[in-house]
Amino acid sequence: MQTEGLGDRILTGDRRALARAITLVESGRADHRAQATQLLSQLAKSGRQSLRIGLSGTPGVGKSTFIESFGMMLTGQGLRVAVLAVDPSSARSGGSILGDKTRMERLSRDKNAFIRPSPSQSHLGGVARRTREAIALCEAAGFDVVLIETVGVGQSETVVSELSDLFLLLLAPAGGDELQGVKRGIMEMADMILINKADGDLRATATRTCADYAGALRLLRKRPQDPPGYPRAMTVSAVEEQGLEQAWDEMQALTTWRRDNGHWTANRASQARYWFDQEVRHALLARLETPAARNEMDRLSAEVGTGAISPSEAAGRMLAALSER
Amino acid sequence: MQTEGLGDRILTGDRRALARAITLVESGRADHRAQATQLLSQLAKSGRQSLRIGLSGTPGVGKSTFIESFGMMLTGQGLRVAVLAVDPSSARSGGSILGDKTRMERLSRDKNAFIRPSPSQSHLGGVARRTREAIALCEAAGFDVVLIETVGVGQSETVVSELSDLFLLLLAPAGGDELQGVKRGIMEMADMILINKADGDLRATATRTCADYAGALRLLRKRPQDPPGYPRAMTVSAVEEQGLEQAWDEMQALTTWRRDNGHWTANRASQARYWFDQEVRHALLARLETPAARNEMDRLSAEVGTGAISPSEAAGRMLAALSER
Repeated sequence: MQTEGLGDRILTGDRRALARAITLVESGRADHRAQATQLLSQLAKSGRQSLRIGLSGTPGVGKSTFIESFGMMLTGQGLRVAVLAVDPSSARSGGSILGDKTRMERLSRDKNAFIRPSPSQSHLGGVARRTREAIALCEAAGFDVVLIETVGVGQSETVVSELSDLFLLLLAPAGGDELQGVKRGIMEMADMILINKADGDLRATATRTCADYAGALRLLRKRPQDPPGYPRAMTVSAVEEQGLEQAWDEMQALTTWRRDNGHWTANRASQARYWFDQEVRHALLARLETPAARNEMDRLSAEVGTGAISPSEAAGRMLAALSER
Repeated sequence: MQTEGLGDRILTGDRRALARAITLVESGRADHRAQATQLLSQLAKSGRQSLRIGLSGTPGVGKSTFIESFGMMLTGQGLRVAVLAVDPSSARSGGSILGDKTRMERLSRDKNAFIRPSPSQSHLGGVARRTREAIALCEAAGFDVVLIETVGVGQSETVVSELSDLFLLLLAPAGGDELQGVKRGIMEMADMILINKADGDLRATATRTCADYAGALRLLRKRPQDPPGYPRAMTVSAVEEQGLEQAWDEMQALTTWRRDNGHWTANRASQARYWFDQEVRHALLARLETPAARNEMDRLSAEVGTGAISPSEAAGRMLAALSER
């Protein structure tokens, strides 16, 4: 891949250079990895920071419509917005979220917006690193806001919240019983809950759902990174473009408070340490993912299954085989 | 440790030899580990199998009382019963469940019972291996039933269900709402749900709770290892020693069906493969737990926190440091 001068072009905000660099960090080839590492080191010196907003919501809550309306509102204020996705499901299905840019037709044509579909990935560990690097590239390219979208499945919320300055939960209006549907652990990660579809017939239900979640948020343990009264639940209508500016005002108020009180810096430092730890563990376990290692694991696993050797004995042999390489 | 002839004594059912061997497998010393591996290989040849019963239940459901009453009922039928514990909480608290044998006063004096408190451990991975080895020792010592107790916390249910032929969930009578309290994933692991305290004022509530869970079990995806009508929910009273024989009859019926249909063997093979995989992964990650590796991780983590180096760069240096050793 031609990467000469790519860093400089990214720093000027060149979108094609940015797209190319993201392809580079997504590549599994060793030479691409080396180029990516070099590029990221160069760009880290820019010191630019975006506001990273993580957004989680199950299919059907209107995530694409929200991102489009919210994104257009931000670009309307002169801000530059990048949209990335963390998609744990693509590992299995081979599909990707955000894959169809027509879902966000207006935003994808906006010159101040950059939308990148999620690549098909083999594992969440790899997804996290590539997304982290894509965020760094968007920051260096001068985007003011980076929206990181995920479908609420398994561990993807943890990944996105560890990549974000603000983590938003987008929910649909629902009967009171369905409040149970959001796991407590996810609630505890949220910096803001937005009840979408507060329009037409669903407006009243959305208001009730919002009050339920506001109540639930008040019952959670107080977090040091929240000023009094936060985290908040609010209603929005992505379709009617209602409540988006108020939500953005709240996000900015929260961000300003966190910056002033040292939480912004502390959070980014803590996230960096988290990703360092994850990357070391991931690399150690990646030794099992080579074709030779997989073969040996399968062979020993079959022997263990028949009872020919014990799990511990087999593990000892596998570790010996790995250290011989 | 004097281990001469320990294997032969265990095979005769010598309880002191068994206790000593469990201490050996719990030891972190390298020479003890070597002796333990040798001992386990020798004993594996006996081919003896117990019925391994995992039992999970939060504090307050009457687990100790149940184990005592159920254990006494089994020894009363001439069976030999061992009781072990997997305690994820001891890593933090330093305490241990089953620590106080006075909780099971009658059973601990029964010559056909063997009760082993959980050791204080540093991590769940280590707990699992030691428990697995302690089970193997109890099987070699000729115990008919090995009960493996755990407090329902985090991942401990998965560990216990992967160590058991039958996994029981012990619950207390409760209002219908609290049915939500048991996570779906835990329900799906259960081979039988027992509602304890079906006595006195709680009898009617226990019956209702039991019906609720029986209904919930019917809604779960059918598992190949269950005959029609299973898994079942039943009421018991450990205090009044009611329902214990019926529960035991059900366990035996289920076990016989599984043996006849190949599921018993398939399950043990699948568990052995699971533990092989876990042990390899655990050993790879254990390279981060040496004092030198911890120091290096801490040093690099601090640098990552200040932003002096990126998480990826730091990970690269850590892996280089590990491979130098």
